[in-house]
Amino acid sequence: MKYIIGHSNPDTDTICSALVYQDYLEQKGIEAKAYALGHLNNETKFIFEKFGITAPEHVHEIPTNSEIILLDHNEETQSIQNIKDLDIVEIIDHHKIKLETDKPIRIHIEPLGSSCSIIAKKYLRNHLDASRPSGSPVLSKENASLLLAGIISDTLYFRSPTTTQEDKDIAEKLNQIAKIEDLEKFSLEMFNAKSDLGDIATEELIRLDYKVFNIQDKNFGLGVMETTNKDFGLNRKEEITKKLKEIKERDSLSGVCFTIIDILKEESFTLCADEKDSKLFIELFDAKNQDGVLYVNNLISRKKQIAPVFQKHFS
Amino acid sequence: MKYIIGHSNPDTDTICSALVYQDYLEQKGIEAKAYALGHLNNETKFIFEKFGITAPEHVHEIPTNSEIILLDHNEETQSIQNIKDLDIVEIIDHHKIKLETDKPIRIHIEPLGSSCSIIAKKYLRNHLDASRPSGSPVLSKENASLLLAGIISDTLYFRSPTTTQEDKDIAEKLNQIAKIEDLEKFSLEMFNAKSDLGDIATEELIRLDYKVFNIQDKNFGLGVMETTNKDFGLNRKEEITKKLKEIKERDSLSGVCFTIIDILKEESFTLCADEKDSKLFIELFDAKNQDGVLYVNNLISRKKQIAPVFQKHFS
Repeated sequence: MKYIIGHSNPDTDTICSALVYQDYLEQKGIEAKAYALGHLNNETKFIFEKFGITAPEHVHEIPTNSEIILLDHNEETQSIQNIKDLDIVEIIDHHKIKLETDKPIRIHIEPLGSSCSIIAKKYLRNHLDASRPSGSPVLSKENASLLLAGIISDTLYFRSPTTTQEDKDIAEKLNQIAKIEDLEKFSLEMFNAKSDLGDIATEELIRLDYKVFNIQDKNFGLGVMETTNKDFGLNRKEEITKKLKEIKERDSLSGVCFTIIDILKEESFTLCADEKDSKLFIELFDAKNQDGVLYVNNLISRKKQIAPVFQKHFS
Repeated sequence: MKYIIGHSNPDTDTICSALVYQDYLEQKGIEAKAYALGHLNNETKFIFEKFGITAPEHVHEIPTNSEIILLDHNEETQSIQNIKDLDIVEIIDHHKIKLETDKPIRIHIEPLGSSCSIIAKKYLRNHLDASRPSGSPVLSKENASLLLAGIISDTLYFRSPTTTQEDKDIAEKLNQIAKIEDLEKFSLEMFNAKSDLGDIATEELIRLDYKVFNIQDKNFGLGVMETTNKDFGLNRKEEITKKLKEIKERDSLSGVCFTIIDILKEESFTLCADEKDSKLFIELFDAKNQDGVLYVNNLISRKKQIAPVFQKHFS
């Protein structure tokens, strides 16, 4: 049995791509099961509820030497803790790569807007074509909906600079199966669900969509909050900054930032652990310091805009 | 224009996969050109002559910032010298990975017996199916022959432990297009051509199929000679050993070996630079020391059998 896992602090794309890939493999007669490395966020919960789908189980550790498939990530720092004891047999992802294996494995990475786009391609290759070879996996309405949700989530409804024409084409094909009537309205419902964070604790808020990047033996923590309600984060500026400082020390990080992204206005507001991190962020992104909040217009993608600049600066 | 390059010290698989992938991309309207990182070996020359195909140009350096596609390799030490100044946009390979990029790129790696198998899959997906979508690339008889030759070469006509059932299935499908009558006879002709090394200089012999592996900041040189005429190498034992010692010093290697592989008998004879390397090789592979020649039955794949053991030992 192969374990399919997305990255930790799971988002909609990582959960949906893992879950639908389980279906794809099962239809091909391969035993596999998707697990979540953490609690689902409210956007993902909203989607699962809307389509009546059971969420994947939360897993903390996988038995030593198990075969695992990494979805939507490839870096050890973003994966399950005991990854070094596991046998990675396959990777499907849309991020930059930082990986060393001791044997050849299956790797399928494409610079698309979401991992769900890549999974969709595996089904769609022939699906809408009357000539689909018999026996090739069939994409159900539910799974098409999950993939479509993953694409909408990761591309911020095609607003993010990570979006490609191919993502848009795939989404259109998916919706011929999913049949969601008003896609933009659906995306707003998703983003509002994501923005509804109730009485979330500060550290949990920072870690909701948080990744550690290892660059030249230094570790950088980059949390983001994609929201339609930026004030929810900005009103907690002081406690977030304090918590970032704590996390930086506790996790021995070289730097840590938390970026609040206004999905609809396509602008961002970043908080940093300390003066040093703030100074660097302002320098790297030409940010406007508004009383400790670093404002940048159009900076809305960690993957395409923030992480590569850090990578380049420290390499 | 994208440059497609295989690894240095090119073999039949690296040359044929790069050249046929050029055709695939061109048929998709993408401008790309395959180049060779070195002279073709006699096996590859024999194949090109047999099918009347023009060999790819030999390239030493590619203009800074050019887009390159790596075929049949992914490690910098096995690629073009100025790779750090180039923009890797895609990788197609069947080796273990050791790679770090600063942005997401297309990566397609499968643990198959040859890179030609992977290229073949891109065409064959629909080719033999009457329902092939119009506009998808067509595999010509010549290109099917080149891919088939690449598979035969890299799997030692399906003898190597790297061979999978999928390679065999792909080869069968390819030969429905290539229509080579006696495939085994063809493979013997290939291997005899490869074994005909004329008055090759000793260093050239060592470097004909030579790769440097970087493991934990140490570099190891592993040359192999796949042959039907092992005595051609064994008769030059003294000069090869002397040259290995020279190469080890000159290239600051932690170790260097040269393995003569008898393709037909499926056994190997290894020469090492010095006592230290010999001792290690004997220990790692339970080799029989026959007067400085390290004999191992069934040890015939650098990729699947030799390199991983070094990797594991030094990691």
